[in-house]
Amino acid sequence: MNHHTIDNAFHDLDLIRQQNPVVHNLTNLVVMQTTANLLLSIGASPIMAHAREELADIVAIANALVINIGTLDNTWVQAIECAQREAMHRHLPIILDPVGAGASGYRTAITQEILHRGVHILRGNPSEIMALTSEVKPKGVDSRNQSDEAIDAAKILSDNYKCTVVISGKTDVVISNHKTLFIPYGTSLFTKLTGMGCSATALIGAFAAVNQDYFHAATHAMTLFTLAGQLAARKSQGPASFYSELVDGLFQFKKEHVDDITLENVSD
Amino acid sequence: MNHHTIDNAFHDLDLIRQQNPVVHNLTNLVVMQTTANLLLSIGASPIMAHAREELADIVAIANALVINIGTLDNTWVQAIECAQREAMHRHLPIILDPVGAGASGYRTAITQEILHRGVHILRGNPSEIMALTSEVKPKGVDSRNQSDEAIDAAKILSDNYKCTVVISGKTDVVISNHKTLFIPYGTSLFTKLTGMGCSATALIGAFAAVNQDYFHAATHAMTLFTLAGQLAARKSQGPASFYSELVDGLFQFKKEHVDDITLENVSD
Amino acid sequence: MNHHTIDNAFHDLDLIRQQNPVVHNLTNLVVMQTTANLLLSIGASPIMAHAREELADIVAIANALVINIGTLDNTWVQAIECAQREAMHRHLPIILDPVGAGASGYRTAITQEILHRGVHILRGNPSEIMALTSEVKPKGVDSRNQSDEAIDAAKILSDNYKCTVVISGKTDVVISNHKTLFIPYGTSLFTKLTGMGCSATALIGAFAAVNQDYFHAATHAMTLFTLAGQLAARKSQGPASFYSELVDGLFQFKKEHVDDITLENVSD
Repeated sequence: MNHHTIDNAFHDLDLIRQQNPVVHNLTNLVVMQTTANLLLSIGASPIMAHAREELADIVAIANALVINIGTLDNTWVQAIECAQREAMHRHLPIILDPVGAGASGYRTAITQEILHRGVHILRGNPSEIMALTSEVKPKGVDSRNQSDEAIDAAKILSDNYKCTVVISGKTDVVISNHKTLFIPYGTSLFTKLTGMGCSATALIGAFAAVNQDYFHAATHAMTLFTLAGQLAARKSQGPASFYSELVDGLFQFKKEHVDDITLENVSD
Repeated sequence: MNHHTIDNAFHDLDLIRQQNPVVHNLTNLVVMQTTANLLLSIGASPIMAHAREELADIVAIANALVINIGTLDNTWVQAIECAQREAMHRHLPIILDPVGAGASGYRTAITQEILHRGVHILRGNPSEIMALTSEVKPKGVDSRNQSDEAIDAAKILSDNYKCTVVISGKTDVVISNHKTLFIPYGTSLFTKLTGMGCSATALIGAFAAVNQDYFHAATHAMTLFTLAGQLAARKSQGPASFYSELVDGLFQFKKEHVDDITLENVSD
Repeated sequence: MNHHTIDNAFHDLDLIRQQNPVVHNLTNLVVMQTTANLLLSIGASPIMAHAREELADIVAIANALVINIGTLDNTWVQAIECAQREAMHRHLPIILDPVGAGASGYRTAITQEILHRGVHILRGNPSEIMALTSEVKPKGVDSRNQSDEAIDAAKILSDNYKCTVVISGKTDVVISNHKTLFIPYGTSLFTKLTGMGCSATALIGAFAAVNQDYFHAATHAMTLFTLAGQLAARKSQGPASFYSELVDGLFQFKKEHVDDITLENVSD
């Protein structure tokens, strides 16, 4: 991670603020409001719509499609398939958040169906990423840490599905075509309120709408989201004030704010 | 807009605080929580319920019905029709928010069906209002601005459907029976977070529950909502603190607070 | 209420923070985000999932099941029954929030079905509790207050369904096996925003996951939630800042904070 990446990330943010890309979300019932507000805070235009009768019309005005399976059921699975096919037809970037993959066989299976149809960027936490391939075997607590195993899994998924994979955590990892980039700005407050991973995925959608290099789009989104999180955490007394500071911070985020952070010495 | 209107608006707000009217919302999945909290902040009692089995019972204890098509699908369309018929039978005020009308043929068609059955107040942004009638033709960028065309469309809708129409924007416009009133207090932060238009519609429902003159009810709701927004914007660093200041401000809103605003010189 | 109870409540909170129990919520569309955030603020792990295809898997990793009927419909009623049967099979604590019982015949009937199948803790406001039994007859405004009648109803429900019953209000009442305990820390701001009762029920789920004495689990959850509410109310200007202070306060809540409250002289 270096200043060049941060400069490019802010360049993409400027494009989002100028172009207001429409991000169509098929997302879960818990985080809809949070996701919409975080997209608005960076200048994107969120749409939430799931009726079969209108998916073709909505995808036609969208610049990216974000799929999130957090509270899936049969109705939503059908809507996801329909929207995904429309988005593929129109060459929109498709971003997938496999919330809870591994927690149920249903989630894992549906996620794999979506990946098989075609996804450009996949973002999840280590356990979700690892649940999506059986080719990485845990080797016992002593041999390697979970993070290394998740990276192995992400490389396999990136190869198999020809997509960029983001693993979220204290350090985010972006993986594509044998490139691996580490973004070390995560803060633990992101795990103390709901919808932060889902919102990261939605923001990747906005960046992918303005930057067709999806490895860069994912890198830029995660870099700015986590840097804004670092800044918000310093002003926060807990998860609720963190959310408020994060949204307000992204709304007025400028490169000068980042210079105040000791990028080399990130603490939790 | 004058002090007389503001006095009358606060009179209605006092009635809401005393009577706690029940506002039944068939609204979208993104804004349910925000809408409920804003209704509570002014003293109204929100109910969200959509099961066919209970709509007659719920409408029977409601004082207004607010319909919002933001995340409509076939199940909700049926619930809306059922609740609307019950509300008409009981002579409740019915308020409609045509979220995204024009963005899909489905939304536009469903909105027109709801209008045909009978609505007392319609509130939308200029593009939504213009999407609901084909009688206003855009005349090119030089001839007239979108706002004028939206007012023409609103007048036609008001005539055709015998309803009050509110167009939201930097200046809100209330139209009914050839009366047109401008409310110049909008602030751009309202567009930077989700659910603000939807909440304005819900608040109109609360005002219509205590004031049977729907032109006045809509005027009073929009006046107090946007004045509270002006006050909140001054204390805000961004959309999240704006929301917090708006809810807290409405909760304790008194006419004295408005005296602090330069009503003549509203800035964005 | 005494310091011994408060000590024990903080002991349970420590267990939640150490064990991060998984609380599976079948709850309403309005409060999902708020409920998830309040569970996270005390250290629990919320899951929202309702698809029939995965309920067995999700309940298998859960430590408590919270059922809330706030926006029920036929799909959710079926999911509730399925999850409840799985939870009974696995001997999980089952906690029920009968939102709006009495407001429609449908709600009352569904709530009674859920109670008949088996619930360990029931939490509602006085009117909801009274709607669930016809054995308590209101005796006129002069004879007794609603609170006494609600306690009578709660005792009958506790006997009939072998469950602990919590009545929420300015003073919360916990009733089980002829034991009755009063918790006098309620603050009126809890009624000025949505999801506070629902979140109290969800928190009871987290406490029941670490304390198998459900009378104590309910008592400890309500004690800490309302004490945190007292502290939050002092720092709040209205419902939105109250929510923020409540979440942040619970996140860092320690027994020392309670010593600052005049426990004997609680004011609204």
